[in-house]
Amino acid sequence: MRNTARRAATLALAATALAGPLTGTALAAPQSLYAPSALVLTVGHGDSAATAAAARAVTLTCAPTASGTHPAAVLACAELRGAGGDPGALAADDGVLCTKEYDPVVVTVDGVWQGRRLSYEHTFANECVKSSHGASLFTF
Amino acid sequence: MRNTARRAATLALAATALAGPLTGTALAAPQSLYAPSALVLTVGHGDSAATAAAARAVTLTCAPTASGTHPAAVLACAELRGAGGDPGALAADDGVLCTKEYDPVVVTVDGVWQGRRLSYEHTFANECVKSSHGASLFTF
Repeated sequence: MRNTARRAATLALAATALAGPLTGTALAAPQSLYAPSALVLTVGHGDSAATAAAARAVTLTCAPTASGTHPAAVLACAELRGAGGDPGALAADDGVLCTKEYDPVVVTVDGVWQGRRLSYEHTFANECVKSSHGASLFTF
Repeated sequence: MRNTARRAATLALAATALAGPLTGTALAAPQSLYAPSALVLTVGHGDSAATAAAARAVTLTCAPTASGTHPAAVLACAELRGAGGDPGALAADDGVLCTKEYDPVVVTVDGVWQGRRLSYEHTFANECVKSSHGASLFTF
């Protein structure tokens, strides 16, 4: 009887040890396996995001899989990953020739990249210059 | 012959008139039918978004249909629509009793709501207080 009681107590302890941490992280578990990467991208016509209305806006999630309303989520995630999560680091394609016309297009990227908050805004002189920076990220 | 030529010219003009605007807006057309609503929501533990890492982040699109990685996108969109797109206008549920414990939780909402840019940050005293504000929007 004492043996049975001890065994029961040991089992209860083991169950608590198992259940404790599981209960505590049950809600966070699916997300805590990877750092969140969830972004919203906008494009508008004007000098700055403060004054330009957002003509188009898309969402982009890059973990655990590429998804969102971005029309080329997989490519956009790959491009951003290649740039270390910095949209400003996307190299311009030297092969693209653009006019010097000033018809500004402002893009923004807000949200979280691999757990770090990201807030990016950049104004391109015109649509052609915008399109020459990265093939997919700003094409929506 | 002159009549035929005139008819051809008229047809060409009509075709240009039709094709012109169509070509110009072809890319923007699917989105321009409604103002974009695309958001990214984050939650983190700390006093402000500047210092608190984003523990979780989800995307939420409310037009044309509710979608995103938010676990209850349809309800969250309805809630935000009811609040006129202002997360700060979500009423607290008076029926919920919370302790006064200070264990701050900071939430952010960034992106575009019905074409207008939205950037919202709020710090709740603790998780219970956060959950009492709106049933779905901040529950992810």
